[in-house]
Amino acid sequence: MPSVDLVITNGLLVSPETTVAADIAVDQGRIVAIGAPGTLPPARETIDATGLHVIPGAIDVHVHVREPGFSHKETWTSATRAAAVGGVTTVFDMPNTNPPTASVAALDRKHAIAGSQAIVDYGLYGLIGEHNLDQLEAMAQAGAASFKLYMGSENPLVPCPPDGAIVAAFEILARLGIRTTVHAENTPLLTWRGETLRAAGRTDAAAHLEQHIDLAAVEAVSRTAIFAEWTGAKVHIAHESTRHSLPHIRFAKARGVDLTVETCPHYLFLSTDDGGRLGDNFMRVKPPVREPGHAGPLWDALLDGTIDMLSTDHAPHLMSEKTRDVIWDCAPGFPGVETSMVLMLAQVSRGRLTLGQYVRMACEAPAEAFGMFPRKGVLMVGADADIVLIDMSKTGRITAAGLHSIGNATPFEGFALHGMPVRTLVRGKTVALDGRPVGPPGWGRPVTVRRT
Amino acid sequence: MPSVDLVITNGLLVSPETTVAADIAVDQGRIVAIGAPGTLPPARETIDATGLHVIPGAIDVHVHVREPGFSHKETWTSATRAAAVGGVTTVFDMPNTNPPTASVAALDRKHAIAGSQAIVDYGLYGLIGEHNLDQLEAMAQAGAASFKLYMGSENPLVPCPPDGAIVAAFEILARLGIRTTVHAENTPLLTWRGETLRAAGRTDAAAHLEQHIDLAAVEAVSRTAIFAEWTGAKVHIAHESTRHSLPHIRFAKARGVDLTVETCPHYLFLSTDDGGRLGDNFMRVKPPVREPGHAGPLWDALLDGTIDMLSTDHAPHLMSEKTRDVIWDCAPGFPGVETSMVLMLAQVSRGRLTLGQYVRMACEAPAEAFGMFPRKGVLMVGADADIVLIDMSKTGRITAAGLHSIGNATPFEGFALHGMPVRTLVRGKTVALDGRPVGPPGWGRPVTVRRT
Amino acid sequence: MPSVDLVITNGLLVSPETTVAADIAVDQGRIVAIGAPGTLPPARETIDATGLHVIPGAIDVHVHVREPGFSHKETWTSATRAAAVGGVTTVFDMPNTNPPTASVAALDRKHAIAGSQAIVDYGLYGLIGEHNLDQLEAMAQAGAASFKLYMGSENPLVPCPPDGAIVAAFEILARLGIRTTVHAENTPLLTWRGETLRAAGRTDAAAHLEQHIDLAAVEAVSRTAIFAEWTGAKVHIAHESTRHSLPHIRFAKARGVDLTVETCPHYLFLSTDDGGRLGDNFMRVKPPVREPGHAGPLWDALLDGTIDMLSTDHAPHLMSEKTRDVIWDCAPGFPGVETSMVLMLAQVSRGRLTLGQYVRMACEAPAEAFGMFPRKGVLMVGADADIVLIDMSKTGRITAAGLHSIGNATPFEGFALHGMPVRTLVRGKTVALDGRPVGPPGWGRPVTVRRT
Amino acid sequence: MPSVDLVITNGLLVSPETTVAADIAVDQGRIVAIGAPGTLPPARETIDATGLHVIPGAIDVHVHVREPGFSHKETWTSATRAAAVGGVTTVFDMPNTNPPTASVAALDRKHAIAGSQAIVDYGLYGLIGEHNLDQLEAMAQAGAASFKLYMGSENPLVPCPPDGAIVAAFEILARLGIRTTVHAENTPLLTWRGETLRAAGRTDAAAHLEQHIDLAAVEAVSRTAIFAEWTGAKVHIAHESTRHSLPHIRFAKARGVDLTVETCPHYLFLSTDDGGRLGDNFMRVKPPVREPGHAGPLWDALLDGTIDMLSTDHAPHLMSEKTRDVIWDCAPGFPGVETSMVLMLAQVSRGRLTLGQYVRMACEAPAEAFGMFPRKGVLMVGADADIVLIDMSKTGRITAAGLHSIGNATPFEGFALHGMPVRTLVRGKTVALDGRPVGPPGWGRPVTVRRT
Ligand SMILES: [Zn+2]
Ligand SMILES: [Zn+2]
Ligand SMILES: [Zn+2]
Ligand SMILES: [Zn+2]
Ligand SMILES: [Zn+2]
Ligand SMILES: [Zn+2]
Ligand SMILES: [Zn+2]
Ligand SMILES: [Zn+2]
Repeated sequence: MPSVDLVITNGLLVSPETTVAADIAVDQGRIVAIGAPGTLPPARETIDATGLHVIPGAIDVHVHVREPGFSHKETWTSATRAAAVGGVTTVFDMPNTNPPTASVAALDRKHAIAGSQAIVDYGLYGLIGEHNLDQLEAMAQAGAASFKLYMGSENPLVPCPPDGAIVAAFEILARLGIRTTVHAENTPLLTWRGETLRAAGRTDAAAHLEQHIDLAAVEAVSRTAIFAEWTGAKVHIAHESTRHSLPHIRFAKARGVDLTVETCPHYLFLSTDDGGRLGDNFMRVKPPVREPGHAGPLWDALLDGTIDMLSTDHAPHLMSEKTRDVIWDCAPGFPGVETSMVLMLAQVSRGRLTLGQYVRMACEAPAEAFGMFPRKGVLMVGADADIVLIDMSKTGRITAAGLHSIGNATPFEGFALHGMPVRTLVRGKTVALDGRPVGPPGWGRPVTVRRT
Repeated sequence: MPSVDLVITNGLLVSPETTVAADIAVDQGRIVAIGAPGTLPPARETIDATGLHVIPGAIDVHVHVREPGFSHKETWTSATRAAAVGGVTTVFDMPNTNPPTASVAALDRKHAIAGSQAIVDYGLYGLIGEHNLDQLEAMAQAGAASFKLYMGSENPLVPCPPDGAIVAAFEILARLGIRTTVHAENTPLLTWRGETLRAAGRTDAAAHLEQHIDLAAVEAVSRTAIFAEWTGAKVHIAHESTRHSLPHIRFAKARGVDLTVETCPHYLFLSTDDGGRLGDNFMRVKPPVREPGHAGPLWDALLDGTIDMLSTDHAPHLMSEKTRDVIWDCAPGFPGVETSMVLMLAQVSRGRLTLGQYVRMACEAPAEAFGMFPRKGVLMVGADADIVLIDMSKTGRITAAGLHSIGNATPFEGFALHGMPVRTLVRGKTVALDGRPVGPPGWGRPVTVRRT
Repeated sequence: MPSVDLVITNGLLVSPETTVAADIAVDQGRIVAIGAPGTLPPARETIDATGLHVIPGAIDVHVHVREPGFSHKETWTSATRAAAVGGVTTVFDMPNTNPPTASVAALDRKHAIAGSQAIVDYGLYGLIGEHNLDQLEAMAQAGAASFKLYMGSENPLVPCPPDGAIVAAFEILARLGIRTTVHAENTPLLTWRGETLRAAGRTDAAAHLEQHIDLAAVEAVSRTAIFAEWTGAKVHIAHESTRHSLPHIRFAKARGVDLTVETCPHYLFLSTDDGGRLGDNFMRVKPPVREPGHAGPLWDALLDGTIDMLSTDHAPHLMSEKTRDVIWDCAPGFPGVETSMVLMLAQVSRGRLTLGQYVRMACEAPAEAFGMFPRKGVLMVGADADIVLIDMSKTGRITAAGLHSIGNATPFEGFALHGMPVRTLVRGKTVALDGRPVGPPGWGRPVTVRRT
Repeated sequence: MPSVDLVITNGLLVSPETTVAADIAVDQGRIVAIGAPGTLPPARETIDATGLHVIPGAIDVHVHVREPGFSHKETWTSATRAAAVGGVTTVFDMPNTNPPTASVAALDRKHAIAGSQAIVDYGLYGLIGEHNLDQLEAMAQAGAASFKLYMGSENPLVPCPPDGAIVAAFEILARLGIRTTVHAENTPLLTWRGETLRAAGRTDAAAHLEQHIDLAAVEAVSRTAIFAEWTGAKVHIAHESTRHSLPHIRFAKARGVDLTVETCPHYLFLSTDDGGRLGDNFMRVKPPVREPGHAGPLWDALLDGTIDMLSTDHAPHLMSEKTRDVIWDCAPGFPGVETSMVLMLAQVSRGRLTLGQYVRMACEAPAEAFGMFPRKGVLMVGADADIVLIDMSKTGRITAAGLHSIGNATPFEGFALHGMPVRTLVRGKTVALDGRPVGPPGWGRPVTVRRT
C-alpha cells in the first residue's frame, strides 16, 4: 500500500447527523480515506488530533476582501490570513471593490490579485448591474462563482439596477444555473428616507436606523422571492437582520422558491443596546443591527432551517473610519471572518446549539447552496481536505489587537471564548496553527461550482 | 301619520343574507321605512315593483369619467347617464384627468364640473404624487373620497412616485383613515420591458402582454400589502387580473393587512382568445386581459371573498383610438359602468352566483370598504334611497350603439342578457327608467365617507 | 292604513354591522315594518324605547330544561321564565331527560309538556343512540329541531354510541340536512381515567379535572370534524372549554368542514382559581372549567369567529346536589340562561366587545347555524318579533336568590352588572318586564328549522 | 498496518446526498475505513464491486415473520432468507404471533427462535395491550426494539386497547423514549361496519373495502398524532394507504408531533384495478389497496418527506389461504420483504426517483426513526457492515416461484425488473449472493436501539 501525504489521527469527526472517532487520510489535497485508527495507510505527515473535534472548514459566502481599491482596509493577504485563523477555508469575495467586479477584465484582474496572495480558497462574485447584463455569461465562463445584486444601494460604485434589469438578470442566471446573492433592501426607500433625514439636519446614529427601517429589508426579501419564483432563478438573501422578514421567507419556501438565506453574528449577538459599550456611531452597518428583540427569532430561524446558513458580511474598516461624528460619514460594517466560528463555539459550549448544527449552517449548507458540495463542506472521501481541528476546552477572549484583518475594528471586543480552532487545513496544507496564519501566499485557489 | 315622498311596493328585497317581500318608504331621499305591504305610510308617489327584485344601487369605485381634459371620450353627463342605466348609483372618479386631480384647486374644479352634470352620486379620487404629499390632508378636507396611487404607470400625467414617497403617503393616509386605491403594477419593470420591446421593433398586440407580465402585477400587489401592513394604511387593489396574485392576497389577509381587492368584468368574461373576435389591438387594457386560465380562479376568489368586490375600471375611448395599427398607440381600457350589472345578472340566471352574492360584491362590499356603509350599499332605514329594480325575466343583448358612453367601444358586443335593471333611483329620484337616463343633470352629489 | 298590534318607538336597533335609530311595527307576532319615527302605522300598543338599545332575542341552543324526569331541578315553567328574564327568546332543550328524548313518543311527550308551560320559543333535541338510528328520520319529521350526540358520556341514560353508529347517524343527518350538536369528549378515555382515579381512592375536586383532561376534548373535536367531513354532516361542537382545541377547529374550518362551535360564560369568566370562592366541588362541570390561561384564547376565538356563538349549557341543580363531599357525587353544571346576556353586557360596557358583536354571537349566529335565520336572530321585516330592550345604563349584581331557575346555584354570585335587558318580547308579546317573567304559560312554541 | 477482514473495491457508494467512488474496509463486522482505491489496508477477502452501486442494507420495520404460531406461512429461516436476497439486512418482527409478544416470556421465547434461525439482523416488537401496561418497561429492558399498537384490530389475539390504555401506554413509552408503531384504523368503526356487512350477507371483495373505508384510517392517524402530541410519545404510522390521511400527517408534523410514517409497495404499485389480474379476493390486505387515485399522492408524499420511509408489511400466507370464496375468510396481506427493493430499483431505472432517495427512505430514515442510526442505515466508519451491492443493469421478472418465503403469494407476479441486488452483507458476512441466500442460520442478531 503506497503511503499518503497526511493522516490526521484520533480526532472526533463531526457531521450534522453524527460524531464518530476516526482518522482521515489526505493525499494530493483530497480526503482519500476515513478509517478507524490503524486502518489507514502510512503517511508522510501525521497530525495527532487526540482530544480534538474535526470539522470541515467553514465557508463564508459573504466577505469583502476590499482589494483592489481599498487596500488600506484589507488585502487578500490580510483577509485570508484572518479567515485561516478563524477556521474559514473558503471565502466568497464581494464585487464592490474599485473597480467593481462587473466585467471579465475586472474579474481576471481580481483573480490575479487573489491568486498571488490568498492562503485559503475563494470564489469571486460578479456584479449585476444595469449595463452589464450581456456580460454575465462571459463572467460565469471566466470563473465567477456567483453573482451579487445590490438591491438596496447608496453606493455609486455598485448602484441598484432597475427592477426590469433585475428580472432580466435573473432570467440569465436561471439559465446558467448560478445562485445570486442579494443585498435585499429597497433602494428608493433608502434614498427617500436618507434625503429626508439629511434635509432635517440629522447626523446622529439613530438616523441610520430610521433610514434603513425593517420595512426596506422585508419588502426587498419578498420582491426577491417573487422575482426568483417567476424566473426560476436561485437566490440567496444576504445578511438577514430582522424578524419581520421571517414570515415572508417561510411563505416563499412553502411556495417552492429556491431561496437560501444567511444571517451574521452581529445580528445574533448584538442590538442597539450595545451602542453604549461600543459607541452608537461605531455600530453602523447595513442593514443595521436593530433594537433588542430580533436576535431571538433569528436564532430560532437559524436552528429550524428558515435561515439556512451563517456568513459574516466581513467588512473591515479602520477604526477612524467607523467613529466619525456624522453618522453618514461612518463606514458601515465590521470584520467578521476571524470571529464567527469562535463566537458560535462559545454557544456550543453553553448548549445553545450542537457542533453538528454549526457544521450544518457554516459548512454543509453554504457548500450545497453554492454548488460546491460534496467537494467542500463535508468530510468524506473525494472531498477537498479543508479541515479544522477544534479544541472545545480552550478558552480566551476576542481582542481587536489579536485579529489579523487590517480593519480590525470588531464589535466583539472582550467576548469570552470557550472552544477554538487550533489548526486549519486547506486542501491538506496547514494554513493556520494555534492562532497564527502559516499558509504560503498563493496557496488559495478559486473554487469550482456546479451549475444546475 | 304624515305621508312620505315615495313607496315602492310589492318587490322582493335582496340582501347578501336573505330575500324578503317588503315595501320601501322613501322620504327626503332616505329610506324611512321597510314594511310588509300595507304597513307603510301613504305616499305621494308609488312604484309598483310586483315581480321585480329590489337591490341597493351598485357602487363602482373605479370609473374614469375623463373630464376635465378628455371630454371627447366621456363627460360627467355621459358617464353618469351610463351609470344610471347600468344600475350604478355611485361612481368613484379616477384622478388621471387633465389636469390631474392632484391639488385642492383641481379637486374643486372637478367638483364643480361633476356637480353640474352628474345624475348619480360620486366620489372623487385625489392623486398621490411624489410632490403633493403635503396637500393630501387638505384634499381630504376638501372632500376627496379616496386617493389613487399609480404604482405602475407609463403616463407622464400621473407618474408613479418612488417607494419612499409611497410609504410617506401611506403614513399620512393611515392617520387620516382613508383607503387608498392602488394600480398595482411594477413601474420600473413596465418601463424596462416597454423600452426593450420597442427597441426590438415590436408593435404587435402580444408585445403589450409581454410588457405587462403577470409578474409586474403580482409583485406590486405584494409590495402594496407590505407597505400597508407597515404603515397601518387601508389599501384597495384595483383591477385584479391574474390568478398568480391570489396567494399573495390570501397571505396578506391572513396576516391581518387591511386590504380589499376588486376585479372587473373583462377579467371575468374575456381572455386573449377574444382577440380573434374583437381584434387583438382593440383588446388592449392595463393590466391586460390575459391568456385563458385566469377567469376561473378569479371567479372562485370573488365568490370566496379573496376578491372583495366588483368594479369596472370604466375607461371609455373612441373606437378609432382603440384600433390603431401600432399596439403602443392603442388606447387602453373599455367602458364598463353600464354593462357590469347586466353581465352579472346573466350569470345569476345561469346559477353561477346568487343575486345576494352580487349585492355583496357590487353594493355592500364597496360601501363598507370606502366608509359609506350603512348610508349606501344597503336597503335599511336611514340609508340613502339608492335603489335598483331588476326584472330577472327580461332578456336582451349588449350593443355598443345602445350604450350611453361617448367612448362606447365595448368588448361585450352581442353578449346575451337575462335579467336587467328597469329602474334606478338615486336618493329617491328615478334617474333611469327602462334603459333610458331620466335624471336631471346635477342631481348627483358627492358622497360623504367615514374615516377610521 | 290599518293599525298594527304594536310599535316600539325611539329605540336604537343594533345589528352585527350597524346601529340605527328606528321604530319597529309588529303585527300577528311578526315584525311588519321598521321605520323612522312617525312613518309606521298606528298601533294598538306602543312601547317607548327611548334611551334603550333594541336587539333580537338571544337564542340559547344548549339548555337542559330537566323535564321530564328531574323536575326538582327545573321545569319548563321555571327554565323559560329564567330565559325570558335573561333576554333569551328561544331555547334548545337537551335530550338527557328521563326518559331520554330518543323516540318519537318521547319527543311527543316533551312537546306536550313544553307546549303547556313554556313562555319562550323552543327547539327539542332528539338523542342519537346506538339503537335508535332507524328512528332519527321519524323524529325529525315529528319536529326535532336538532340532534344531540353524547360523544363523551358517563351517564347510562345517554350512553356514547360506538364510532360506527356515530358515522351511520351522521350519514342520516347529512341527508336530512340537520345540524348535530356534539358533546365532544372521548368516552373511553373518561371511563379509563375515571376508573383509575376511583381505584386510587381519589374523591377530591382535582380528580375531576384529571379525568376530563383537555386531551379528551381535543381528540373528540378533531374526530367529530373528520366524521363530519367524510359524511357531509353539519355538526356543532358544544361547550368548547380548552384553548388546545382551537388549532383543530381552525384546521377543520380551513378544510371546509361545516362545523360550528359554541362556548359558555363559565369558560369565559371562570377558572379553577374560582374554587376558593365557590368551593372546588361546587365548580364541577363537564367539560371542566380549567386552570387559568384558557379564557383569554377562548375570548379571542369568539371574537375572531373561530368560535361561532355563545350558549350557556344551562344545567340547573340544587345547591345540595352540587356540594357533596365526594367529587363524583357532585352534580355537574350550572344554571346559565338567565345570566349570560347580563354578563356579556357588562363586558360591552367595559369595551371588551361591541353590542353588535354580542348580537352576532348570541342571536344571528345560532339562528343561521340551526336553520332559523331570517325568521329568528335578526330584526327585519318578516322575522318573528323576538325582541329585547336593553338599558345599557342599568346596573346591578347577580344573586342566586334573584334567579328564576329552581336550581339556581350560580357560580356568578355577586358579579357586578352594567347593562341589563328590561323587556323581552316573544313573537310580539312581552314575556319579561323589568326582571319579572310575565309571559303566559304555553305562549312558547316550537321553532321551525330549515333543513339544507 | 494490520490487515482487515474484507475490502469491497471499486464500487459507487450511494448516500441520500451524494455518490462517490470508494472502497470500503470491514473488520469484525464493522466498516472500519472508506477510502479511494489503494488507500485501504490489505484484506483477507476482497469483493470487487466494479460496475456496482453500494448502498446500506435496507431496513424493513414492518415484517410479520409468523413464528411462533404460524410456521406453515413463514419461519425465521424463510423470512430472513427472503430478506437477505431482497437486500434487507434488518427486519422488525410484528408481535401478532401465537402467543403474541406481550410479555417478557414471549419476547424471550421469540428471541431464542430468531437467534437460532435468522440470517439477517432483527428487532422484535412488543405488543401493547390493555392488560400488559405494567410489563412494557420490563419488555423494553428485555430487548424489545419497539412496540406495536393495534389501533384497528379484528384479531382477538391482538385486540385494540381502549383509548385510556393507549394514552397510558404512550405516557410510559414517552418516558422510555421508544417509538411506537401504530396500525392506525378505528376499531369500533371496523367492527360496526363489519357486522353490518355480514348481517347483509355480503361476502364479496368489495365488502372488505366498504368495511375498511379510508375514514377509518384517516381518523386513527389523526387520533394517534393527538395522543402523541399530548404525551410526548414518538409514534410511527404503519402502512399509510390513503391520500386522505396526508393533510392530517402534514398538520401533525407542522405542530411538531414526533410522527414518522411508512407506506408499502402494494399501495404504491397497485389499486383495485389489479383485482382483475390477481383475483379480487386475493387482493385482501389491511388496510386495503384502494381504488385508483391514491398511489400518485402517496408517491409524492414519499418523495417530499411527508411519508418518511418505505416498509413492506410483509405478511406471508399460503395461496390457498388468500383465495377463498368468502372475502372474510381470505387471509389479508402479501409477502414483501424480498420484492420491495427490486420494485423500487425498477423505478430508479425509469427516473421516478434517484438511488439516493431510495437510500433515504429504505435505509437512513428507518435507522434514524427507530434509534439505530448511525450504527445502521448508513455507510460510514463505525457502522455495521450491512451492505448491499446493486447491479443497475441487471434485469429480470418477479415470480412467486422464485421467492424464498413459504407464503409466496405475491401480487407482483411478472413485474419487470431493472436493477437488482447481487450481494447482501450483514455485519461483513455475505448472506445472499446472486439471488441465493447463503448466510448461516443464526448469524442474525438483535439490534440495539438508542432511546431518547
Ligand atoms: Zn449587503
Ligand atoms: Zn456585504
Ligand atoms: Zn389602473
Ligand atoms: Zn383605471
Ligand atoms: Zn355536554
Ligand atoms: Zn349540556
Ligand atoms: Zn397493520
Ligand atoms: Zn402488519
